[in-house]
This record gives sequence, structure tokens and C-alpha cells, in this order.
Amino acid sequence: MMRILCLGGDGFCGWPISLHLSRAGHQIGIVDNLARRKIDLELETESLTPIRPIRERIDAWRDTTGQSIDYFDIDVAEQYDRLLAVVTAFQPDAIVHLAEQRAAPYSMKSSWHKRYTVSNNLNATNNVLAAVAESGRDIHIVHIGTMGVYGYATAGMTIPEGYLKVKVTVDSGEEIMHEILYPTSPGSIYHMTKSQDQLLFSFYNRNDGIRVTDLHQGIVWGTQTAETKLDSRLINRFDYDGDFGTVLNRFLVQAAAGHPLTVYGNGGQTRAFINIEDTVRCVRLAIESAPRPGERVRIFNQMTETFRVRELAELVASMTGARIAELPNPRVEAAENELKVDNSSFLGLGLDPIRLEVGLLEEIRDIARTYVNRCHEGKIACSSFWTEERRRQSQAAGAGA
Amino acid sequence: MMRILCLGGDGFCGWPISLHLSRAGHQIGIVDNLARRKIDLELETESLTPIRPIRERIDAWRDTTGQSIDYFDIDVAEQYDRLLAVVTAFQPDAIVHLAEQRAAPYSMKSSWHKRYTVSNNLNATNNVLAAVAESGRDIHIVHIGTMGVYGYATAGMTIPEGYLKVKVTVDSGEEIMHEILYPTSPGSIYHMTKSQDQLLFSFYNRNDGIRVTDLHQGIVWGTQTAETKLDSRLINRFDYDGDFGTVLNRFLVQAAAGHPLTVYGNGGQTRAFINIEDTVRCVRLAIESAPRPGERVRIFNQMTETFRVRELAELVASMTGARIAELPNPRVEAAENELKVDNSSFLGLGLDPIRLEVGLLEEIRDIARTYVNRCHEGKIACSSFWTEERRRQSQAAGAGA
Repeated sequence: MMRILCLGGDGFCGWPISLHLSRAGHQIGIVDNLARRKIDLELETESLTPIRPIRERIDAWRDTTGQSIDYFDIDVAEQYDRLLAVVTAFQPDAIVHLAEQRAAPYSMKSSWHKRYTVSNNLNATNNVLAAVAESGRDIHIVHIGTMGVYGYATAGMTIPEGYLKVKVTVDSGEEIMHEILYPTSPGSIYHMTKSQDQLLFSFYNRNDGIRVTDLHQGIVWGTQTAETKLDSRLINRFDYDGDFGTVLNRFLVQAAAGHPLTVYGNGGQTRAFINIEDTVRCVRLAIESAPRPGERVRIFNQMTETFRVRELAELVASMTGARIAELPNPRVEAAENELKVDNSSFLGLGLDPIRLEVGLLEEIRDIARTYVNRCHEGKIACSSFWTEERRRQSQAAGAGA
Repeated sequence: MMRILCLGGDGFCGWPISLHLSRAGHQIGIVDNLARRKIDLELETESLTPIRPIRERIDAWRDTTGQSIDYFDIDVAEQYDRLLAVVTAFQPDAIVHLAEQRAAPYSMKSSWHKRYTVSNNLNATNNVLAAVAESGRDIHIVHIGTMGVYGYATAGMTIPEGYLKVKVTVDSGEEIMHEILYPTSPGSIYHMTKSQDQLLFSFYNRNDGIRVTDLHQGIVWGTQTAETKLDSRLINRFDYDGDFGTVLNRFLVQAAAGHPLTVYGNGGQTRAFINIEDTVRCVRLAIESAPRPGERVRIFNQMTETFRVRELAELVASMTGARIAELPNPRVEAAENELKVDNSSFLGLGLDPIRLEVGLLEEIRDIARTYVNRCHEGKIACSSFWTEERRRQSQAAGAGA
């Protein structure tokens, strides 16, 4: 049994991670300022699934399993003293850090959203690391990062797990092999903050010996896990809006509502994916196989499959009969990219991935069709644009807000 | 004539840069929240030289040269709306960005100082970039970075100007040449924020087309410039305290006060240096030769010489008769390092460097000896430690606070 704080434990990944770790016998404390729910109020949208308030969820978990979970309403980025007090009193063996704004479109929505994302995400990560250093305790930090830090310029190379072997030519003309953090090329302010997080982890790891596992996660699909299915009050969040809804969720809701599936450009962008059940298992595997003292930051690629956006659209279309429509891309990115990813660390730890083709039918039936009556259709389109030019292109095409 | 905003224009580099650009015929606006002066109050120290209040300095400049300089008391990291209003109203062609906390020891002083440095520096840089993007104006940003982002692990290689050519092996077995941002290995929280700044510049450059020149500056030595010498009220700042005083300034004050020159370990650390006159010329050269539209972030190494700390101590000792004493290093770093640096960009633009051996006597005579009576000797020792272990080692040796 370990004592584990889950920062951002009320969110889409944080909630099922907390329940999975609790059911595995660990003692869980959730730290969350409910930022994600408050952003729903700002965007005038909500989870397609009827999620319950955090304390009701926690009570339902206790009723269902007999396991208690502590809850601390703390803004990790803004309330350092309260965070340090919880780290000191709760005495965690591990901290799962998900207390960051995690939507690329939201981070590009306006100047304010860029500034909120930078300030929130970087101060949150620095506060967690500073609190662990100040506490003097040996606490393993498990961070949920993103595949997006690698950028998409891989040119025939399988993306390694965080570090890249390169040859550099020194003054004598000799070529020397170095292993470096994979050079990042983030495609949004959100992805950039995760690249900057890597420098924070590397520094505190070298200076203070803090043990860190950074999980470079793909796009998570799926909604429920074995634990969130135990009681209807435990149901997990499902986002479908243009800012927080990932591409697959938007397709599912569009299909259920009888609308065309909207892809950007020709849908040639390749993305990495992982099922939510695999996400919670990966985090547990990462915690239960912690780095050794003195080990450098451990980086795992937390993804199991890659798809082109068009392939996904065709898959959903074939299962639902929806048609596909092309829209101008609101992002500044290449129209097409390859993506091959090394995920051997988690496979080596015993992960047996859930394949998207297998799990998709359940999402269509149990989530999208069941809750489609809760959908605000006007919220599906993207209303965030990477530049003014992208906004004009979308508006000229009659898309977006 | 260009219109130029100088953020941090009241500081050690910012003030002489502002005057130099003003004398060159440019219209200058200084933005500064006087953070550096307020930190002197916190640390209970002050500039060895008797610097005047900002408005008195600006009035003296007008009296002396007939040139006016505007002043805006704005916290760049915290007061975005005021910053944007000034950017919009002043209509700058270029912004020199020095609005960051710039002392490595101060950034490591405590948990609070780590958090202040991260939040202040990253929010300041992001605010400048977001304001330029939001203004819609084509403004060239010139940022004062640091040689310290490169880290010190160069192993026989001359450090290039910002970008490194590397070979990576792709899946076919073929080796492909890439040019990447030089992999950073920052040695303090302060240096880390400058590495993180690079990712901000790179992102806004790619996404918004913002033109940026990032100057990776060495340790600046010297105090006065041709402009600050024009009137005693224009005198520049000279820091000698354990947090903000650079190694050479501490040696000069120790020698003038009749104390031994304190080096960390055997003084084998090699550092890059540049004279303050060369700094102001470099910034002018960078502004007057701006990047083309669409050009990637331009990075110049703004340094002219390298020395081992022990060599510097011996140089000052030979000129003053001071003796040298060794102390435990408060930093986590290698005891010895090589450092060779490419600075061909500024040499190509016509920079004719001032050599330390030539300028040092003036510093000893006109600054250290002239103002030694203003020195608080108890402030020279380092009172910031990279880890608790380093604090204990220093205290066991009877050094530090």
C-alpha cells in the first residue's frame, strides 16, 4: 500500500486514475480546484455524461467499495503554502501530477487563454517540485505529459521514449554520441508548457535528486473504466466541445446527432491514441515500478496505436453511417505527417493494449447514443484559432464561431 | 530613428542600453517596476555606486543631452493590460526585453525565490510575446538571454550560436542531419527560465511570425559606459553582494576592502565574459540589423572572452596585492570545465571587443577604490545554496551566512 496524492484528481484522467489506484489498495488524496468544471461554465458547455460533484463522487466510491478518498480544494498553481501543508501532512509516497490546463485549442483561444495556460501550468509544476524539495521527503512524481512535445517532424524515425541519441562533431573532427532530451517542436501554447515542464523535471532531478516519471501520453479515448462503471454516480467525464473534446469524441457525438464528421483539411494528420483503461493501468504500472534513487527522469510513451484523423473518421462512419466533411484547419501545422512511436517500456511492464476497433462500438452505444440528448450541437465546432489568418479562413468557409 | 521600448531599462544592463540607444538617435521608452531596487531592500544591500532614482536619472539625461526618455512603471509579468496599452500607444519598432530576475544565487535562495523567478520570468516573456501578437504590429524583440543555457558539458566542442547540427539514425539505418536548438543543461532555476524562454520565442516565431533576436550573454563586467560617464547622476549600478554581484565584482570589492578573494573549490570553473560597453554596442547592432520577416529566432552569443575563475582571481590579485582563499562551492556543478564559444556573428557585425586585462585597472581605480567606503562587507559572501547539503558544507567551513 502506498500513499498517493492525485493533483487534478477530479478530471477526465485524474478521476479514473484515483479510483483505479484506490481499488488497488493505495490510500488516495485528491487535490483539485475544480478548474475544469469552472471552464465548462466559461465555455457554456458541460460533460456529455452526467458527472456528479466531487464530494458526491467520493461518497459514492466509499459506499460502493468501502474505500475512503481524501479531498483537498487547492489551486496548485496559486496556493503553494496549502499545497506544501498537504504534502507534509499526507506524507505521500507518490504524487500523480495532472493539475494543468490540458486543451491545445483552449490554450490558443485568446491572449488571456495563452497567459492562463503558461502561468497555470508552469507555476503548478514548479510548485509541486518546490514543495517536494522543501518537504525533504523522497516522493516519486508521476507527471502526465503529452506525445505533442515531440512535434510532428519525425521523417522516417520511430519516436524514442523521451531521449534521442545524436552524433555531434567536436572541434577535432571526431563524432561523439550524446543522448539528449528529444528536441521539442510543440504545436500549441499547451504543448509548449509540457515541453517547458521537461526542463523543470530535469533540473530538480539533477539538483535535488527528485525521482520523476514523465508519461508522454497520446490522445485518450473511451470514457468508462472498470471502477467508474461500478455506480452511476462514478461516471467519468466525456468532452465533445471544440476546445476540450478530442477528435474521436467529436466524431462520436456528430454521428449520434446525425451530423457529418468534420475533419480538418484532408485529415492527413497522424495522432497517437490510448484507451482510458490503459491510461489508468499505465499510471499504476509507473507508480509501482518507481525509478531508483539517482536515476534520471524516466520518460515513457503512454500510447498504444496511431491513426490518421481520416482513418478514424472512416471507422466511425462505417459503424454509424455518418458522412465526412472537410473544414479548413484552425491550427498551424503540416497537412500530413507520419508518426511511429516506441512504447516498449509499458509493453515490457505487461500492458496488453485495448484496440480502438474493439472498444469503439461500446463508446458509440453506451456513451454517444445514450447521452446524445444532453449534447449542445453548437459547441462541437472549433472556436479557437491559432492565428487571425486561420480565423478568417474558417469564417470564409462558414465554419467555426 | 527607431522607437524602442526597453523593458527592465532601470537595471544594470538596461540603463546603459537605454542611454546608448537614445544617444544613437532612437526614441526610448523605459518600462520598469523597479524590482531590482526593491530586491536590494529585501537583501539589505545596495549598489556600491550611488545610483539615482529613475526619474532623476532620466531628467539628468535630458539636461545633459537634450534627449527625452519616457518612463512607464509597469510590472511586465503581472500587469499585462498596462503593458499592451503601452505597446499599442508607444508604437515601438523594437522591444529590448530585460524584465527578468537575473541572478542565479537569488533564484536558489529559498522555495519562495525559486517560485518568484519561475513565475516572474516566464510570465514576463510570455506577456511580451502575447502583447506583440495581440497588437498586430511587426515588432522585433531583442531578448537578453544567457550563456548559461548551454550548460557546461561541451567536451571539446566550440559552443555554436544557439543551434547545433546533429546526426540522427532513422529507421532505415540512414543518418540524417538536423539542426536543433542547442540542448540545454541549465545549472540554476534562473538559467532554467532562460532555457524555457527559448521555447516561448521559438513557438511565437513559428506560430505568429514574431521576429526575435535572443542574445546569449556572458557575465558582464565593467560599470560605466561613455553615456553613463556624462554626468554623475547617470552613474550605473555595481552589485557586489553574494546574490547579484558577479564573480569579478566581488573580487574587486574584496581587494579594495583588503580581504582575500574567495573562489569556490579550486576555481576551475570557466565562464564567458563581456564588457558593459560591448554589451550596449551589441544590443544596438542587434536592433539595427533586425531579422528578415519569416526568419527563425536569431541567436547570437554575446560574449568576447573566457576565463577560469582562478585566472580572474590571479589577475585581480596581481594588480592589487590581494591574496586568494578557497571556499566550498554553494552550487551543484562540475569543479572544472572547458568553455569555447563561437561569437562570430557580432564580430562579423563589426564588434571590436574590450579586453578584460585592459579595462580592469579602471574598474579597480574608478569604482572599487572610489566607493569602497559604501561597501557592506558582510554582504559579499554567498548566502544562497543550491541544496541543504551545500549549505551544511559551507557552514562547516565557516563561510556563508
